[in-house]
Amino acid sequence: MKRIEPTLAGGLRDYLPEDMIPRQKMLDTIREVFERYGFAPLDTPALEKEEILTGGDKEFKKQIFKIKNSEKLALRFDLTVPLARVFALHSDLGRPFKRYQIGKVWRGESQQFGRYREFTQCDADVVGSANMMADSEMVALIYETLSGLGLKDFKIKINNRKILADLYKVAQFSKRLNNQVLRIIDKIDKQGWEGVKRELAGLKLSEGSLKMIESFIQAKAFDEIEELFIGSKSAVEGIEELKTIDLNLKSLGVPGDKYSFDFSVVRGLGYYTGCVFEAVLTEGPVVGTVAAGGRYDSLLERFGSVPVQAVGMSIGIDRLFAALEKLGKIEKRKTISEVLVLNFDKACESEVLKIAADLRRAGIKTDLYLGKEETFKGQFAYGVSHEYPVLVIFGSKEKEGGLIQVRDMKAGRQAGVNAAGLVDRVKSVLSQ
Amino acid sequence: MKRIEPTLAGGLRDYLPEDMIPRQKMLDTIREVFERYGFAPLDTPALEKEEILTGGDKEFKKQIFKIKNSEKLALRFDLTVPLARVFALHSDLGRPFKRYQIGKVWRGESQQFGRYREFTQCDADVVGSANMMADSEMVALIYETLSGLGLKDFKIKINNRKILADLYKVAQFSKRLNNQVLRIIDKIDKQGWEGVKRELAGLKLSEGSLKMIESFIQAKAFDEIEELFIGSKSAVEGIEELKTIDLNLKSLGVPGDKYSFDFSVVRGLGYYTGCVFEAVLTEGPVVGTVAAGGRYDSLLERFGSVPVQAVGMSIGIDRLFAALEKLGKIEKRKTISEVLVLNFDKACESEVLKIAADLRRAGIKTDLYLGKEETFKGQFAYGVSHEYPVLVIFGSKEKEGGLIQVRDMKAGRQAGVNAAGLVDRVKSVLSQ
Repeated sequence: MKRIEPTLAGGLRDYLPEDMIPRQKMLDTIREVFERYGFAPLDTPALEKEEILTGGDKEFKKQIFKIKNSEKLALRFDLTVPLARVFALHSDLGRPFKRYQIGKVWRGESQQFGRYREFTQCDADVVGSANMMADSEMVALIYETLSGLGLKDFKIKINNRKILADLYKVAQFSKRLNNQVLRIIDKIDKQGWEGVKRELAGLKLSEGSLKMIESFIQAKAFDEIEELFIGSKSAVEGIEELKTIDLNLKSLGVPGDKYSFDFSVVRGLGYYTGCVFEAVLTEGPVVGTVAAGGRYDSLLERFGSVPVQAVGMSIGIDRLFAALEKLGKIEKRKTISEVLVLNFDKACESEVLKIAADLRRAGIKTDLYLGKEETFKGQFAYGVSHEYPVLVIFGSKEKEGGLIQVRDMKAGRQAGVNAAGLVDRVKSVLSQ
Repeated sequence: MKRIEPTLAGGLRDYLPEDMIPRQKMLDTIREVFERYGFAPLDTPALEKEEILTGGDKEFKKQIFKIKNSEKLALRFDLTVPLARVFALHSDLGRPFKRYQIGKVWRGESQQFGRYREFTQCDADVVGSANMMADSEMVALIYETLSGLGLKDFKIKINNRKILADLYKVAQFSKRLNNQVLRIIDKIDKQGWEGVKRELAGLKLSEGSLKMIESFIQAKAFDEIEELFIGSKSAVEGIEELKTIDLNLKSLGVPGDKYSFDFSVVRGLGYYTGCVFEAVLTEGPVVGTVAAGGRYDSLLERFGSVPVQAVGMSIGIDRLFAALEKLGKIEKRKTISEVLVLNFDKACESEVLKIAADLRRAGIKTDLYLGKEETFKGQFAYGVSHEYPVLVIFGSKEKEGGLIQVRDMKAGRQAGVNAAGLVDRVKSVLSQ
C-alpha cells in the first residue's frame, strides 16, 4: 500500500478539541440567543442543484464547488439561497417565517489570510414581514449575540440602501454612475476616504460632486442628511426608516454606544434593497465585519414567485473565533472532562468502572484512564499534564480502607470519601 | 430571468423547523452523553483530498462525491477517515485520544428507501487504547445514548471478529472460504437463517459444516461456543474478551436485557479486528441498525504510521429520527417560541418592543408579531393556530389600565399584571 501524506488542502482547517470546545460554546450561545428571539432551526442539505445556487449567474458559477456527476449538483455558498428554495418549495410555511440556520458553506475562491474555503455561517432571517420592527430586532439580535459571546467593544453600523440609491441626485453626477460610485464607497473600510476619493476621481466626477459625497458619507446626524435629500423620495423614505429603527432600538434596550448610523455602509450591490447593517470590533486586531445583514426583497425572484419581503443577518463564526483568539478571549482546555478516574490496580477494575458510571450518571463529565501508563505515578502525571480539575483514586489500599480518594487539583488537596458521598464531594470541588 | 424549479435532488432532505426542533434536541442529548463519557468535540472539513478518503481503493472511488477542480477534492463519506488523518497529522494529540464528531457525510450511491446521500453521523472513538474497558465503555455509551433519547426497547448485540476468524476451523471448511462465509452470515438480519443457508449451499459446504455454522450462530452462552473452539487461539482470545466486556458492562450498570452476545454479528469485512457491536430497535418498524461500532487497528495504515489500536461507535441520527417518528416519539412543535407578544396598536409599539425585550432578557423564547394581520382578532388567531403556549396582549386599553394581559393558552385563562410582574407571571404559566 502506497503511503499517503495526511494533509489538508489550502483554505480548510481542523478544529482540534482545544479549539472546538470553546468554539462549540460560542455556537451554543448563538443558538440560544437566536431561539430566545423566536427563530426556529432549519437544516438543509449542503448539496443543491447548481442552477438553484447560481440562478444562471456566471459570476457565481466560478465561485462554487461543483460535483463531478451527471446531476449538476454543487455545494452551497451561503444559507440564504437554500432558505429561498425551502420557502418556495414549502408553500405551507407560515408568514412571517422566522428561521435560523447554522451550517457550513463553501466558496471555491483561492485562499487568503483568514479566508477559508469552507466555513460556518450562523444566519437568522425573517421572511414575509415588511415591518421595520423586524429590521430593528435583527440589529438587536446582533447586539445580543455579540454581547452574549463576551464582546464589549463593538459597533453596529446602520445605513439604508434607499438613501444610497438617491446619492447621484444630491451629489449631482449621472444616474448611471450611481452603482459604480457605491461600489467604490464600499471599500472605505479598507482604503479610507483618501483612497475612495482617488478612485472616484477615475470616474471623472466634479470637485463639487466629490465634496458632496464626502460630506454625505461623513454625516453623523439625520438632520444633516435630511437637508441634503429634501424632495428625494427614496432617500426620504430611507431616512424615515432609519429613524424608526433608532426609536425601536431604544425601546429594545440596545445601548446607544453600540450602534450608529453610518452612511458609508453599502454591503455589496447584488442583494439588499433597504436597511443594511454590519458589526465591527472596535478593539484589538482589525478583522473586518463579524456580523452583517439587511433587508432584501429579491429572495424568491429566481423561483418566479411573487416578491417576498425579508430581512436577515449572518454571523461568521470562524472570523469571530479568530478575532476572539487574538484578543485572548478563547479559553482553551486540554480536556472536556471534569474528572479523571485513575485505573492502576487490576484488583479494582470493577470498582473504578462503577465509580466512573456513578459520576457520569450524576451528570459529571468523567474520563476513566485507559492509556498505557500502568502505575499510579504515571497516571497521576497524565492527570496533571491534561489539567483535569479532579482526580479520583481507588486501588487496593483504598479498598481496604473503604474510602475513595478525591483530589482537588487546583487546591492540591485530597480527602477520602465513601461511595455514597462521592458525587456530592466531586460536585462540591468542581463548584469552587 | 428564467424561472427555476425550487426542487431538491433525490436522496437529500430538508429538516423544516417542526422536524428540526426535535432533531436538534436529539443531537443535544447525544452530545451531552458523549461529553459525559469524556469525549471531546472535533470538527474537520467536509472536503478532504480524494486519496485521503479512498486510500486508492477503487470501490470507494465510486461511492464518493468528487469535486470538479484540479485539486482532487471530495466529500467525506464517514468521520473515521478524517479522524485517522487528524491523528496522523497532529502528532501532539494525547493518547488515548477520545473525540466525538457530529457532522454530515455523503455517499454517492443511488437513492433507496430511508437511504440518504447526505446524512448526519454522530461518532465517538477512543484512539490509542487496547484496554477492553474502552470497548465496554463504547457499548455503555450506546446504551446511555439510546436511553437518553427516550428509547426503551432496543438491544445491543455484541460479537468478536477474533472468533469469526476461526469459524472455518470448527465448521471444517477451507480457510480461503472464511471471508465469503462471513459475508453471507452478515445478511442474516435481512434473509434469516434459511436464506443464509441457501446461499452458503452455493459455496458447496458439507451438511456437517452447515450444521456447525448454524449451531455456532445460534449459540447463546459462552460455554456453548467455548466447547466448539477449544484450542483455536484467536477464537479463545475473542471469547475471553467478550467475557471481560460482560463483566465490565455489569460494573458499568448496563442492564442485562439491553445487550446480548450474538455470534452472527459480522459488521462488514473491511474494517474491524476485534469486538463488534450493533444496536437494533426491538419494537415498532424494522429499521435496521441504529448504532454500531467495534475495535479496529488499521486506522493509520494508509498514512504509513505504526498501527494504533482504536475502538469506536457511530449513531445514524437520520435513521433514528425516522424510526422515532414512526413510533410517534417525535414531539412536533409549530413554533420554538414560548410567548407571542401581540402587536396590533400603533400607539403601543414602543411598549410591545420593550415587553418582548424584557421577556427575552429573562431567557424566555419570545416572538413579537410582525406579520400582516393588523387586528387583535387576526393576531390572536395566528397565536392559536401556531400553538404558542402564552400570548401577551398590550394595546391602548391596557395602557390606560396600566396592566399587561398574559394569556395561558392551554388553560384558556387570562389575567393582567404590571410590567414588574410580567416575567414571573409568564414563567409561572410556562412551568405549569
